[in-house]
Amino acid sequence: MRLVLRSAKELDKFLARLEAIGGQGKVLANGERPLVEVAANGHLPEAFLRWEEVERVLPAGAENPLVRAWNGPFQLGTWDPLQEPLLIAGPCSVEDRETLLNLARELKALGVHALRGGAFKARTSPYAFQGLGKKALDWLLEAKAETGLPLCVEVLSERHLPLYDKVDLLQIGARNMDHYWLLKEVAALHKPVLLKRNPQATVEEFLLAAEYLLLHGAPVVFLCERGIRTFERSLRYTLDVGAVPVIQAQTRLPVVVDPSHAAGRWLYVEPLALAGLAAGALGLLVEVHLDPVRAYSDAAQQLTVDQFALLVERARLLYRTLPSRGLAEPLQGQS
Amino acid sequence: MRLVLRSAKELDKFLARLEAIGGQGKVLANGERPLVEVAANGHLPEAFLRWEEVERVLPAGAENPLVRAWNGPFQLGTWDPLQEPLLIAGPCSVEDRETLLNLARELKALGVHALRGGAFKARTSPYAFQGLGKKALDWLLEAKAETGLPLCVEVLSERHLPLYDKVDLLQIGARNMDHYWLLKEVAALHKPVLLKRNPQATVEEFLLAAEYLLLHGAPVVFLCERGIRTFERSLRYTLDVGAVPVIQAQTRLPVVVDPSHAAGRWLYVEPLALAGLAAGALGLLVEVHLDPVRAYSDAAQQLTVDQFALLVERARLLYRTLPSRGLAEPLQGQS
Amino acid sequence: MRLVLRSAKELDKFLARLEAIGGQGKVLANGERPLVEVAANGHLPEAFLRWEEVERVLPAGAENPLVRAWNGPFQLGTWDPLQEPLLIAGPCSVEDRETLLNLARELKALGVHALRGGAFKARTSPYAFQGLGKKALDWLLEAKAETGLPLCVEVLSERHLPLYDKVDLLQIGARNMDHYWLLKEVAALHKPVLLKRNPQATVEEFLLAAEYLLLHGAPVVFLCERGIRTFERSLRYTLDVGAVPVIQAQTRLPVVVDPSHAAGRWLYVEPLALAGLAAGALGLLVEVHLDPVRAYSDAAQQLTVDQFALLVERARLLYRTLPSRGLAEPLQGQS
Amino acid sequence: MRLVLRSAKELDKFLARLEAIGGQGKVLANGERPLVEVAANGHLPEAFLRWEEVERVLPAGAENPLVRAWNGPFQLGTWDPLQEPLLIAGPCSVEDRETLLNLARELKALGVHALRGGAFKARTSPYAFQGLGKKALDWLLEAKAETGLPLCVEVLSERHLPLYDKVDLLQIGARNMDHYWLLKEVAALHKPVLLKRNPQATVEEFLLAAEYLLLHGAPVVFLCERGIRTFERSLRYTLDVGAVPVIQAQTRLPVVVDPSHAAGRWLYVEPLALAGLAAGALGLLVEVHLDPVRAYSDAAQQLTVDQFALLVERARLLYRTLPSRGLAEPLQGQS
Repeated sequence: MRLVLRSAKELDKFLARLEAIGGQGKVLANGERPLVEVAANGHLPEAFLRWEEVERVLPAGAENPLVRAWNGPFQLGTWDPLQEPLLIAGPCSVEDRETLLNLARELKALGVHALRGGAFKARTSPYAFQGLGKKALDWLLEAKAETGLPLCVEVLSERHLPLYDKVDLLQIGARNMDHYWLLKEVAALHKPVLLKRNPQATVEEFLLAAEYLLLHGAPVVFLCERGIRTFERSLRYTLDVGAVPVIQAQTRLPVVVDPSHAAGRWLYVEPLALAGLAAGALGLLVEVHLDPVRAYSDAAQQLTVDQFALLVERARLLYRTLPSRGLAEPLQGQS
Repeated sequence: MRLVLRSAKELDKFLARLEAIGGQGKVLANGERPLVEVAANGHLPEAFLRWEEVERVLPAGAENPLVRAWNGPFQLGTWDPLQEPLLIAGPCSVEDRETLLNLARELKALGVHALRGGAFKARTSPYAFQGLGKKALDWLLEAKAETGLPLCVEVLSERHLPLYDKVDLLQIGARNMDHYWLLKEVAALHKPVLLKRNPQATVEEFLLAAEYLLLHGAPVVFLCERGIRTFERSLRYTLDVGAVPVIQAQTRLPVVVDPSHAAGRWLYVEPLALAGLAAGALGLLVEVHLDPVRAYSDAAQQLTVDQFALLVERARLLYRTLPSRGLAEPLQGQS
Repeated sequence: MRLVLRSAKELDKFLARLEAIGGQGKVLANGERPLVEVAANGHLPEAFLRWEEVERVLPAGAENPLVRAWNGPFQLGTWDPLQEPLLIAGPCSVEDRETLLNLARELKALGVHALRGGAFKARTSPYAFQGLGKKALDWLLEAKAETGLPLCVEVLSERHLPLYDKVDLLQIGARNMDHYWLLKEVAALHKPVLLKRNPQATVEEFLLAAEYLLLHGAPVVFLCERGIRTFERSLRYTLDVGAVPVIQAQTRLPVVVDPSHAAGRWLYVEPLALAGLAAGALGLLVEVHLDPVRAYSDAAQQLTVDQFALLVERARLLYRTLPSRGLAEPLQGQS
Repeated sequence: MRLVLRSAKELDKFLARLEAIGGQGKVLANGERPLVEVAANGHLPEAFLRWEEVERVLPAGAENPLVRAWNGPFQLGTWDPLQEPLLIAGPCSVEDRETLLNLARELKALGVHALRGGAFKARTSPYAFQGLGKKALDWLLEAKAETGLPLCVEVLSERHLPLYDKVDLLQIGARNMDHYWLLKEVAALHKPVLLKRNPQATVEEFLLAAEYLLLHGAPVVFLCERGIRTFERSLRYTLDVGAVPVIQAQTRLPVVVDPSHAAGRWLYVEPLALAGLAAGALGLLVEVHLDPVRAYSDAAQQLTVDQFALLVERARLLYRTLPSRGLAEPLQGQS
């Protein structure tokens, strides 16, 4: 059986106590709430619920016990989940200092909760713009310093991690969702992570990637649905809105939606964003650019500030009108 | 070039006039608004717009000119598209007279606009319940007579058509979307058709199937997205909410969503329904049963009347809160 | 429990005998080897194996008992499965009498076993060539009369069946695999059927469609893999060669491959054909045209006679080199 | 325009000569045959073909010029492509020294050309066996020392690269095909790379990943098709045999097939392997284990040595019977 302890400092006491009754413990995850595999020497699972060190006993068969057990707070900047959807916005790639700072000010004024922006980029073609790297990160930090907006930036290599010290929300891009050795190193920084679903990953695999992150130290994982790859190519990807309630039936980790990469064209960003929220997502990750036609990457799908402002208005209206499923207890009845 | 005429009675006059200027016409579709392929003897497309017989000149390359040109009214029972979403509901299969009549009364009381119900069924296994056939149709007509609700019933074979005389909305099921010889016969009845998207069909193929229907006589086609087949199997199908705005960018034909077949389990019907409406759909097709656990088919996905009532309330709230894209002019900017 | 009887004439005797021991029988399939659902009044399955009327007791859970139990002969023209692959070839659509007869003579000379040709066509666009219908069937019969080649022709509507009286192998096209009402009528003609897999159908669904055919009277079903729809579009469909052994692990029904529709371009027809045979298929269904560039449909994918002759040579070489799995007992070890 | 030079030592001379005629060059790839973007000051592409430094002028629009231009030798151990298929085999994970050495001896005796084995593993679940890491690499090197077999080992993190010094063929696993920052570092080691296709990647994206490798220094890339993710789940993945000729129409880089991961069950490994070769692949990557049921990972799909020996025999027979397309000039007629 697997137990989650209330806190890391209970671990030694728990193991000693376990040994005293003839049991044995193997620490599977040594984070804030350790996960311990217990050989119980005949003691029933229920018995351990009476131990003060034990927070919960995990269901025997669950392959993602930490994801299912997760019950922590999720906070990001000034966002109040009871009032409005989480809004993370910014350009696909950071391209120059001035443009970034101006955009950050505009987004701040619209009430966005975090600024996203690409520093190192993962591009399908080796001849495409690969991002400005450290320079872009410096400008993002400057934007944070000025506006107070937390930063959400994608990590592409273990090598780059020392540069991400002041980034608030570490993004694992869709291509790297199953790059488990990167996940382990990112998680070890003990920062919140935004994990994008790989377009070929099942929900089950997506949640196992989140399990890697929780197991190796991430305090919270924002799960981001961004479209899966299917035979239908009239949009870039097929936004799997059904994944939102399916995930929420299994975990309380926050679920957000990225309509920009799913749509691939600005015209379809708003319908997909609203669909994601109506399906129960808690927030949105949107690409916004001061002048999309001049963008170095993803020119077709970035919104102008005006287009984004309209989306924000409608997203807030929708969020207030319909109670978000993401705040409730997990859906019942999941087989 | 292809021209749509204002009405069938203008056809002869138009052809004569065309001949008089040295042109030639070939009638592609001989419905209420004939579609004519025109060899124009040097006359420009714009010139024909001045002819009183001509409603519009179609774009040269369009493969689905009637779908793109369609601009008729869509009416179903008492539904007012400006006020609320279209609601078509009923059991997967009609199973007995009493249950059907009781359910129809309950749905009527909830303000549903049309009653759906399966008479002949298309089942994956030959050993599964194949529907009650003519008997079920008789009971559906009885329910219509009593409640005044229009009927929406799936047609499975050319042979059965004589039985569908009093059915208001002829449904082409997902499996038969590309059964073109059935489409031709159904269209020839000149009744409104509800066309479900085949789970493997691209949007382009879906609209070409609608083109078959319009070309062969259907006055209007309700386009129903009901989930596509992808690698993700945590729900039965992947509801392609992006298809809703993609279709609306090309045609004014009404788009509805069937969340029941996409979800495959009742728990997920509501999130998918709301996502579909938020993406711009004008209405819903939902499976409802007085006692789902006793249903002969689709037991897992049918809603109880109470669950459906809750969904209706939220769907109406959402529809009033956000302006439905389906009522507006086609989206601009489609490449 | 379900039993397969040795022959139709044993049925009455069996039912009487069953009743005598207090059991009850329900005839599920009344073909050459009837399938009977038996309530056994406590008698064990093994006991029935001693009854002379009983050929086999089907596994309890099998959803496709007739497909699994099928063990009949499959014959087509002069084909000897021990010597070479089955070769069915001909034009996508029959376009004119002379061309068809010339092609039939050439195919006959190459040792082809059956002539295929489209009479009624299922086309994605209503404006595309829909086939010459009855006239094409007449020419095909003429070609059969002259060359002695059996005919394989697709059926598209229940209405057309009277015209197929002298067709040897009735083809159910991919689009109609799950058009179950057509399947029932086709099966009732008691002729061999070639069933193409719907590009969205799982192997399980494919075999259930074959079960419909066997249950309603078809003596044998040639199962034809012709490519599934996936995200990869560099070819028209993705030939699922793995389906060949997966099917052969469950049934002895013959499996053939259609490389033409999977490839969509002639250049790739041969590699796919050879791959299908190497995976264990017993034969090929190939589109061949005297002058492909002038074809009314599928111009890109039809082979010339010379290209086809080369393919035939290599296909025969491969077939003789590697023992075909399709002739062996079903693969063992299938879970 | 883009030019490929004959060798690295021609670079400076070429640039000087270019400058002398008023042109400008930008080095895109600085490998053995440099790739240079040239602003030609009005000189036509044909003119440069007369320069002795220039090997070829690339087509203007090609997105993967190095992949298309590649024409180097591919060598691995004692393999003679004219005689037999390339055979790379070994266990999924290296589990203990003794077993590995015994297996390596057996494979050597069967004439295998390279030994594969997992050291660091990428596992969907964080609780699954993650590989023995450096210890496994040491044992693999010991096996190489004893048998003389070149090693093919997957690289999972930039951090691990220093350990791969004596590995002959660096494998990029399917999950990392689009982990471009890893690709750049691996390529910079100037060793042959085996690149597996990501199960969601189009052929186009697959070849762009190979372009990354060639651009950053890899002398040759073995392209490995290993199954794509589709709706069909009766096997683990759908082997895309069509990709083999589609790739060969664009490049002379060698294509191999991994039937083990596509099948997911040993029973289906052989049919898929033969299908891959019949489609034109030059070789196979197969998981083999002395005692598969005791394997730490992929127990279901690994072949025993005896099963593998049978496969090798048939694979060689097939390869000799049919001329491999992979040795010929690229397929003509590709649009």
